[in-house]
Amino acid sequence: MDVVVEPGLGWMELNEYLKPYGLFFPLDPGPGASIGGMCGTRCSGSLAVRYGTMKDNVLAMKVVLANGDLIKTANRARKSSAGYDLTRLMIGSEGTLGVITEVTLKVQKIPEASVVAICSFPSIKDAADVAIATMHCGIQVSRVELLDEVMVKILNDANGTDFQVAPTLMFEFIGTDAYAHEQNLRVKKIAEEHQGSGFQYFDSPEDKETLWRMRKEALWACLAAAPHAEAMTTDVCVPLTRLADCITKSKEVLDASPLLCPIVSHAGDGNFHTIILFDPSNEEHTKEATRLNEFMVHTALAMNGTCTGEHGVGTGKLKYMEEELGYEALKTMKKLKHALDPNNIMNPGKIIPPHVCL
Amino acid sequence: MDVVVEPGLGWMELNEYLKPYGLFFPLDPGPGASIGGMCGTRCSGSLAVRYGTMKDNVLAMKVVLANGDLIKTANRARKSSAGYDLTRLMIGSEGTLGVITEVTLKVQKIPEASVVAICSFPSIKDAADVAIATMHCGIQVSRVELLDEVMVKILNDANGTDFQVAPTLMFEFIGTDAYAHEQNLRVKKIAEEHQGSGFQYFDSPEDKETLWRMRKEALWACLAAAPHAEAMTTDVCVPLTRLADCITKSKEVLDASPLLCPIVSHAGDGNFHTIILFDPSNEEHTKEATRLNEFMVHTALAMNGTCTGEHGVGTGKLKYMEEELGYEALKTMKKLKHALDPNNIMNPGKIIPPHVCL
Repeated sequence: MDVVVEPGLGWMELNEYLKPYGLFFPLDPGPGASIGGMCGTRCSGSLAVRYGTMKDNVLAMKVVLANGDLIKTANRARKSSAGYDLTRLMIGSEGTLGVITEVTLKVQKIPEASVVAICSFPSIKDAADVAIATMHCGIQVSRVELLDEVMVKILNDANGTDFQVAPTLMFEFIGTDAYAHEQNLRVKKIAEEHQGSGFQYFDSPEDKETLWRMRKEALWACLAAAPHAEAMTTDVCVPLTRLADCITKSKEVLDASPLLCPIVSHAGDGNFHTIILFDPSNEEHTKEATRLNEFMVHTALAMNGTCTGEHGVGTGKLKYMEEELGYEALKTMKKLKHALDPNNIMNPGKIIPPHVCL
Repeated sequence: MDVVVEPGLGWMELNEYLKPYGLFFPLDPGPGASIGGMCGTRCSGSLAVRYGTMKDNVLAMKVVLANGDLIKTANRARKSSAGYDLTRLMIGSEGTLGVITEVTLKVQKIPEASVVAICSFPSIKDAADVAIATMHCGIQVSRVELLDEVMVKILNDANGTDFQVAPTLMFEFIGTDAYAHEQNLRVKKIAEEHQGSGFQYFDSPEDKETLWRMRKEALWACLAAAPHAEAMTTDVCVPLTRLADCITKSKEVLDASPLLCPIVSHAGDGNFHTIILFDPSNEEHTKEATRLNEFMVHTALAMNGTCTGEHGVGTGKLKYMEEELGYEALKTMKKLKHALDPNNIMNPGKIIPPHVCL
């Protein structure tokens, strides 16, 4: 139930390899992501609501540190209390603490059955409320994805489909065939109590694959919808109960903007993305994209959320780190960085804002 | 779906508080454990096979560092990629990096239905094989506990029960009523294919509570069985597929010892405990207990496992740390310790062996 890989391997290639064994690796970020990069950003994706994020699915790593030491962060045991959690220290460190050379991943059994359901709602708040209610009910979803009407229209245009252009939830239920259908019926009931309409479910492999492929390729559909634009893809995450609030407030501002800003959300985790489409050669556009991103981040932080649920800090979100975590936490990070990389040779300038002192 | 607590709160008190909300905190170490201590040792328990360990169930902490800084490790969002994982760095650090003053925990919905099953096997290997096969099948267990015949006899004596004195598995299946029973039937089939006998299942609240209480109080039953003895409670964890091997090898040596050494295992995680009952005033006893513990640890390490799955290092397992992780990983831990606590005032002498240099 584990596999040892090199960091350059893509998660999709890994899953091709694992398939004949009836196994899969349950993280699904953008197509093309590699295991090393996924460790670097502490990535997640639509399945995190069931299987957790990268931090929950890596057992061990080999890492080359700045001083040349090659360390093994842990053994293959599924759990351990033997010392500081070097594995988790490396995950999310964006290459600033070492170079990952090997990763041992937990793998999962491919569920024997799954049902995919979609449902439309009059407002994004209704859709978010249903995502929250579903999680509160203890229904075992493996995915709860929310798309706003802007995103649905873009997907329809890109795929020749005719889904109702309205805020939409896409669910996946897994387990045995009976159980997946049982959960599906429960969510249908919750959705109908919150003005849901057009509830449909799919259990044929082809239909399910088509739906998730559409969702997975959302970014490409957006770029096709705005051929001269670039995408500023931002993500925030808030406590689950604040999701409806946060997404509603953000959407009011996004809808009022001249820029096209579709929303896709891993709603079961309180996480959502906005793909802000803007022309980078147009100064007004760039300013507006930045303003929208800042608004979303500040809204999320005011709700005790995070400036990035799964994309990482890099340099783009450096400026929000102090507001989110406080100066002392950043100083602590700087101390850790300095202890392992005193000459600052590992991906310098990332994660820790430059004004933070030791 | 989260709760903010002080570290001195016991997990059992917390669950009493959460119960009226239909929620619980899914970690169940020994009765009496407190949230702070559970963070310190990166604890788990019988439910970890379903819900993960302490590292998977803490969202954020406040910690006072050695220099007096009060840091917040994260916000309330269920996931975040905002910087180094200070939360996970503190979890399992056994008080050597700071004093935890507040913990934000993820909580879970109490499952609407559960079924508990027990089954006996001719050998501990058969029992472990069934635990492994169950996990490989993707059956959703919330508990897979293995007890050897020594432990079953002690439990019978302490509780006036008459369970078959043989290696025994105890399962818990959760979900809807139909699903829990469906999983139960599947495991019954697997057990019967591996010489399982006397398969029984329980779905009344009283029966289930009695069974888990017996299991939870195993340590006290052991102490009652050997009134003048002390318990050396040790735990190791190996990759799941090596569990049957590891536990069989260990048991040969334990059975040949004059000391009473019952085994209890969180088998779904590859983790097992031996409660070595010995008279500390008897030098031969003490030596023998130490020898048995060392044998188990070396056997687990040779299988790419860990010297402690959930109890922590303290001083007792310091001497195995280098064999498990290598000198460079320990040096890295020492650098982290020195960066945050240069005067070594936080629980000195724990986790990192004294011979490790910066």
